[in-house]
This record gives sequence, C-alpha cells and structure tokens, in this order.
Amino acid sequence: MKMKNEAITGRDVDFAQWYTDVCRKAELMDYGSVKGFIDYLPYGYAIWEEIQAYLNVRFKEFGTQNVYLPTVIPMSLFNKEKEHVEGFAPEILVCTVGGGKKLDEPLVIRPTSEVLFSDMYRRTLSSYRDLPKIYNQWCSVVRWEKTTRPFLRGAEFLWQEGHCLFETAEDAEKNTLQVLDVYYELGKDLLAIPFLKGRKTQHEKFAGAMDTYTVEALMHDGKALQCGTSHYFGTGFSEAYEISYQGRANKLERPYYTTWGVSTRLLGAIIMVHGDDNGLVLPPKVAPIQVVIVPVRQKENGVMEASQKLYEELKKKGIRVKLDADDTRTPGWKFSEYEMKGVPLRIEIGPRDLENKLATISYRVDGSKHTYPLDEITEKVPAILEDIHQRMYQRAQNSLQERTKEAHSLEELNELLKDGGFVKMAFCEKEECELKIKELTGGATARCIAEEKPAPGTKCPVCGEEATIVCYFAKAY
Amino acid sequence: MKMKNEAITGRDVDFAQWYTDVCRKAELMDYGSVKGFIDYLPYGYAIWEEIQAYLNVRFKEFGTQNVYLPTVIPMSLFNKEKEHVEGFAPEILVCTVGGGKKLDEPLVIRPTSEVLFSDMYRRTLSSYRDLPKIYNQWCSVVRWEKTTRPFLRGAEFLWQEGHCLFETAEDAEKNTLQVLDVYYELGKDLLAIPFLKGRKTQHEKFAGAMDTYTVEALMHDGKALQCGTSHYFGTGFSEAYEISYQGRANKLERPYYTTWGVSTRLLGAIIMVHGDDNGLVLPPKVAPIQVVIVPVRQKENGVMEASQKLYEELKKKGIRVKLDADDTRTPGWKFSEYEMKGVPLRIEIGPRDLENKLATISYRVDGSKHTYPLDEITEKVPAILEDIHQRMYQRAQNSLQERTKEAHSLEELNELLKDGGFVKMAFCEKEECELKIKELTGGATARCIAEEKPAPGTKCPVCGEEATIVCYFAKAY
Repeated sequence: MKMKNEAITGRDVDFAQWYTDVCRKAELMDYGSVKGFIDYLPYGYAIWEEIQAYLNVRFKEFGTQNVYLPTVIPMSLFNKEKEHVEGFAPEILVCTVGGGKKLDEPLVIRPTSEVLFSDMYRRTLSSYRDLPKIYNQWCSVVRWEKTTRPFLRGAEFLWQEGHCLFETAEDAEKNTLQVLDVYYELGKDLLAIPFLKGRKTQHEKFAGAMDTYTVEALMHDGKALQCGTSHYFGTGFSEAYEISYQGRANKLERPYYTTWGVSTRLLGAIIMVHGDDNGLVLPPKVAPIQVVIVPVRQKENGVMEASQKLYEELKKKGIRVKLDADDTRTPGWKFSEYEMKGVPLRIEIGPRDLENKLATISYRVDGSKHTYPLDEITEKVPAILEDIHQRMYQRAQNSLQERTKEAHSLEELNELLKDGGFVKMAFCEKEECELKIKELTGGATARCIAEEKPAPGTKCPVCGEEATIVCYFAKAY
Repeated sequence: MKMKNEAITGRDVDFAQWYTDVCRKAELMDYGSVKGFIDYLPYGYAIWEEIQAYLNVRFKEFGTQNVYLPTVIPMSLFNKEKEHVEGFAPEILVCTVGGGKKLDEPLVIRPTSEVLFSDMYRRTLSSYRDLPKIYNQWCSVVRWEKTTRPFLRGAEFLWQEGHCLFETAEDAEKNTLQVLDVYYELGKDLLAIPFLKGRKTQHEKFAGAMDTYTVEALMHDGKALQCGTSHYFGTGFSEAYEISYQGRANKLERPYYTTWGVSTRLLGAIIMVHGDDNGLVLPPKVAPIQVVIVPVRQKENGVMEASQKLYEELKKKGIRVKLDADDTRTPGWKFSEYEMKGVPLRIEIGPRDLENKLATISYRVDGSKHTYPLDEITEKVPAILEDIHQRMYQRAQNSLQERTKEAHSLEELNELLKDGGFVKMAFCEKEECELKIKELTGGATARCIAEEKPAPGTKCPVCGEEATIVCYFAKAY
C-alpha cells in the first residue's frame, strides 16, 4: 500500500525540484507541446477561476467593464512607444505568414496590451462624457523567455490586464492605489497570503510608467515574489498613441492612463507560501475540492450510504466536496493523493466510527485529526474552513514578520540577506546605488518602498547622501 | 433633439449594412488594428459572459472541467491528421520568429485545438480509471479569413471547445448528443432563439469527424446560421495522435473522442433574429442592462430621489439596472440610445407621473408603453422580463415555422428557396446530389437532417434513388 508519495523531493532538500514535483504530481499543469508553454490542467485552472471570480466582483465595485482585444499587434503600432518597446522587444513572438502568404506587415503576439488598448481608445474616445474608461481583459500573453518555470515565468501565461483612462491625474492615481488595495485584499481574503505593498523604486518601475505599485510575497525559501502590479502612466501613452477627447472646456485633452494586472504566477505563490513535504496545501477559499470524503471498508454495512448522505448535505451547503468511492484504490492511497493535492479537509467514514455515529476529520494544514458527531459535521465545516484560512494567513504573516529584518549599513544588508527574507533599509532611490546593492549582494533588488519615512538626517548607506525612502530589499524570483 | 438615430440603415433596405450599423452603433464591437480582427467592447463582451455563465453551469452537470492549453501548435504536430490539416491549413497564421531569432520550427496559432488536446491526452492519459475525460476550454482562435464580418466570420473569435475521451463509442455518442441538447436549450432558455437540431450530412460534417451534429437558426433575411456543433470522432484522432490507455482487461486501448463548441457567432444570431429598424433587441437574460431608468425633468422636486430609490430596489432584486442621470443629454436622446442598445425595459419617471405615484415602462420588444404604480414596479419587473423572453422566443418560433417549407422536387426546392427560410426535402445524402443542389439553387446547402424518416419508397429528387433522410436546406452565412 502506497502510504506516502515517495516521488516528491523534500522541500528543504531541493526547493526548486520540490516546486516542480508539486506542480506536476498535484496535476496543476503539464509541460506543453512547445518548450516553455504549459497546459493548465483542471486542478490548476480551477484555482485560477476562483481568483477570477473574486476579482470580477471586486473590480465591478469601481465600475470595471470586461473587454477582449486582438491577440496580435501590427509591428508598426508596437514600435510607437520607445521605452515600452525596449522593455518587450527582446522577447516577442512574431507571425510572418497568413493564409499561405507572407504578411505585408509582421504581427506581434501580444506580450501585454497597452498598444492595443491605446489604439482602441484613440478610435473610440470622443468626449469627457466617455470618461472614466475602466476596462479589463482576461487573456493569455506570450513572452519568448529563455528560462521558464511553471507559473513563475513562462512563454505563455494567463492574466488580467486593466487599462483605464481618466480626466485628471488625481483620478488616475486614485485608481492605481485602489486596485493595489484590491490585490492586497485578494491575498488576505482568498489566498491567505500576506503581501507587502508599496511603490516600486524608479529603477524597478514598469517600462513606460511614471509610477509602479506592487504587492510582494515571501516564499518558503526566503525569496520574494512579485504578485501583482498597478501602474500610473500619466499622459505618456496618450501622447505616443494620440488619444484625445473633447474636454469640459471644449478643448482637446489627453487622458491619464493606468494599467494593472495579476497573473497565474499567483498559483506559484500559493504553492511556495503554503506547501509542505507532503505536497500542496491549498487555502480553503481557492481549493477546487474543499472536502474529500473517503469511505473506509466501504463494502461494510452503511458506510457508503452514510458517505453519500454527508456528500449530498455538504454539496447542498455550497461546499466543494468530492466523494471518492473508487474501490480499486485503498484508503491509504487516497489519503496520500489528497494530501498531495492539498485538499483542506479529509473526512473518513468507517464501520467502527459509524457505530458510534462519529467521523474523523483530518486537517491538511497541520495533519491533526478530530472526531465529530456525524450529524454535526455539515454544520461545522464552513466554520472549520474559515478557521483554517485564518490560521494559514496568520502562519504566513508570522513567517513574514520573523523574516523581515532591518539593516543600517551595506555590510549588515548583505549579511542579513544571506538568510533570505526581506531587509528594510533607508535609501536614496538612485539607480546607481541600487545597482551597487545588486552587485554586492549577488542579486538582491529593491522590492517595494515602505510607508514609513526615514528619520530626518538618515543617510543612504551606499552613497552617503540623504535617504528619501525606506525600502524592502530581497532576492526575488 | 435627436429623437431617433438617423444613421442606421433600414433592416429591409440593406440587411448587411443594417447588421454592421447595429454592431457598431450599439457599441458591441469596433474594428481592430489588424484587418479582420475586432475589439469586443464591454457591451458585446458582457453578452458573451452571460453565455459563458450559463454554459459553465450546464457543462458542469455532466462533469466538465475547464482547462487552458497553449495558443501555438508546432507545425509538425499540426500536420499529423490529414483530413483535419486539409480543413484548416489554408487559413492558418504562422509564427516564424521568437526572441529575435528564426524559430527552429514554425508555430501555428491555434485555429482549433484538437491537436493540442490530443497531444496532452497522449502524455497524461494512463488508465481506464482516468476516463471519461471531459475537458473544455474558453479561448480565442485565429483563422486567416479573407472576407470577414463582425461575429459571423472573423480572423479571431472567442469560443468554447470541449474535447473529451470515453471508453466506449456509446459513451462518446451519448456525450455528443447531450451537448447538442445543451446548445438547443441555450437557445430556448437564454437567447430566445429556436434552433433546428440534427446531424449534418456526410458532405457537410467537420474535417476529421465521423458525425457532426448542429444547431441552426433562421435569420431575419431568410438565411440560416450554424450556431453550434458537436462532433463524434470515433478513434481517428486517438490513432493519429497515439492516445492510448490501459483498459479494464489490461490491454492498451484507444479512447473515443468528441468535440463541441459555440462561439461569439451567437452574438450575430441574437442581432439578426431579434433586431429591428431601431437597432438591437436583446433577450432579457443576456441583456447587460435589463432595465434603464430615465428621469424626466430631473431637476424637479423628487424626480431624482424616486429614480434613485427605484434603482436601488431593482439592483437589490438582482436586476441589471442602469440609472442614466446625465443632465447634458435630453430624455429623447437617451430613449433613442437605449433603443439602439436593445435594453428590454425603459422606465421613465417624471414630475407628473410622480404626483400620481406612477411610472411608465416602455417595452423594447414592441414599443408598447405601460403605466404602473411606482411602488409595484420592483415586484413586477422579473415577471415582465420573463414574459418578454417567452414572447421573443415565440415570435422567433412562429417566424421559423412560417418560413420552413416542404419540397418534393428540385424545381420546387429552388423556387421555395428564393424566398429564404428552410426547405425540407427527402434526400439520398450523396455528396454528388448535394453539390448539384448547391449549383442549381445558387448556393443552398444541407443544414441539418430532420428527425423524421422519409416515407418508404420516397426517391431522392436529384438522382431518383431511394431517399434515406429528410433534410433541411437553406442558404446560409
């Protein structure tokens, strides 16, 4: 009897291999037919659908409307905004043949859609009455990356990209921050992941943006992962793509542009924040299966009936429940399978428990077992799931706090970063200082700017000039 | 004051122009940056989202799981199944450059994903325990078409494609027909469109399929529109792509393959079945705005308060409602705007009505006006919307019946087809006869096979041999 899935690498033995093992063995994805592309299998895609459902509701609260724009961008259009092109040109995939003939103009598969939205807005925007435009698109984008890892960096990934226009800089900046808060709450409410949130340094901001805001999470191996970004563009794109509208004073005006997005990279965050040596540990609110019922000695009197009854009750209550009655697999095999898949609760129903009208619930989060009267389980499950969510969030929060240190010199920064985690330091935000830190620490970058300000008179430990920000540094994915 | 949108062409003056006018003026779409590609704007995309929500629920009833597979197919993989390739090769868009270098192998943008699903199943299927596999994907596909029309034929469209594997031919055939029923009910329950459903002739079936089933609708101009298809492939794809599994008898077996899909073409059907000279007429269940409230003389005492109150009540009731309080537009302008957009109900609230605690509801479907006590409206609206849905379905059903004729000779067929609509005729199902009919009638095709059988001894009017089926013919989009 296979009691434990032996094929998975220990999390602290080889984190990278453990990660890939979990992605594959939990059947979240498979490697596709083209290098770097992946198949999003049902179990992985269902998690993404939960994220979509949450965000669609939250985005609608501030008037977001979903749209769909083309997969391809004419090369000439793509080349219009200089900084943006420079950011993406090295990794584009280009079509040159259509209907058996060479195309008049090559077409770029969208690596992101600023260009397409700008061109659409140029055509369709006419009056201040049309503003704000708060559009969002769920789609895939393609980036011809050399080194790829499932969900973290891929030739194609799924995401949402918001592209919005506003009359004033204030409205646009407000939108940028509003969405950042939604992303932060996505972590707190749904993924049980505590994010750091804040502005990116000028060096780390998005190609073409005036300001980039980010949510960053800490992975088990001590590396940071950028989990979502929200950008304020000012009127740069409006100028490059000639978007204008008739303003209130009857003059042509340029709208202010924002964009924001999260991607299937969030699946990578879930795996690397919560997972353990037995595989995936899913936060209950995104788990495609929240409860699995495993009948034990299922041919004995009443076991299947009781299992089926509980299944129906839980389903009626809106719980995502699965009854695994496959009699060609042992309970032990199933225990290990659903542990690997990170199912939050497993309910075992066997003849002995049944005699006493009891059932055993195993919590995936800590492996603990709890016995409950069978007829109270349905009522209790929602509260147990909520409690597990809170505990997972708190555990990740504690880990984040423990692994966030403070440095006051370059040497201290370098030393602390060796243990992984975030290190907070007062800083001048100059590009050259950031590059020096990166070099000295073997790759650490400024992840995001803290809300707090440096005490007056604090100097940047790199150049000795006045520090203007307090910044979180980390090695990152 | 603009009382009517003069820019729209009369429906019976120039149907094609009317169609394009409605697509653009109702802001369902805009022409994209690349010829043949379109932008799906919020108002059009929201209708598609309602279709998605309905189908996701229905598909789940028989165990469908959503996945996402890559956008691109390696050319060598694409070329494996001969008939399939021949069907799609002339209209593929091909990538040849990635990351600045010529690719080792060209990549085809998916025109459909049989090839990708087959390859994924080849890699991931191992045992009969894994069957059935009932996977579905929501995505866009690209077909390099020369002549394009919004929603009906485009270089890129949105669709769902189910790709399933079964142990037996019976299970696979059952799935094919089950999905056909779901599509039929989508028409009846959501779109208010009566479909003809049935098998396609062998000549008209999908490239590589053994049997193709279809739902067909009748457009206002008398042409048919294929609105959804469900295909039974047998084991052809399994063989071509070497999909196998360990069967119950411990032998390697080939699974039976089905695919099925509907696309944003359904938006075209909605427009052309229900629309009129004033623009779009939306079936209530897919309408992004089901009720629009237009305050009249909105600065007068109590008008805005009453409008706002009604808005909140309807929203609370789950109605998709909009309150248009823009005071730079006249009520007349708004009336015409929401007529163009096909909003099912318009509620006017003005000072005079308010005095009598009344409000006027205008029905888009027939332009009729009804006065109701203001405090009864919220309660009444759901039933009114349901009634409108039924009336729209019945109207389309009547039109379908009136325009479905019966022919007993080639001459009669040709004559009847001149008026548009479907013509039913006993037929031998031979390709050569079908081609003769197409030639003689100037393009009519076999749309689908009726359930009824020909009376014994009935001959095919083309070749004089025994008729085996009764078939609906029509000119089609």
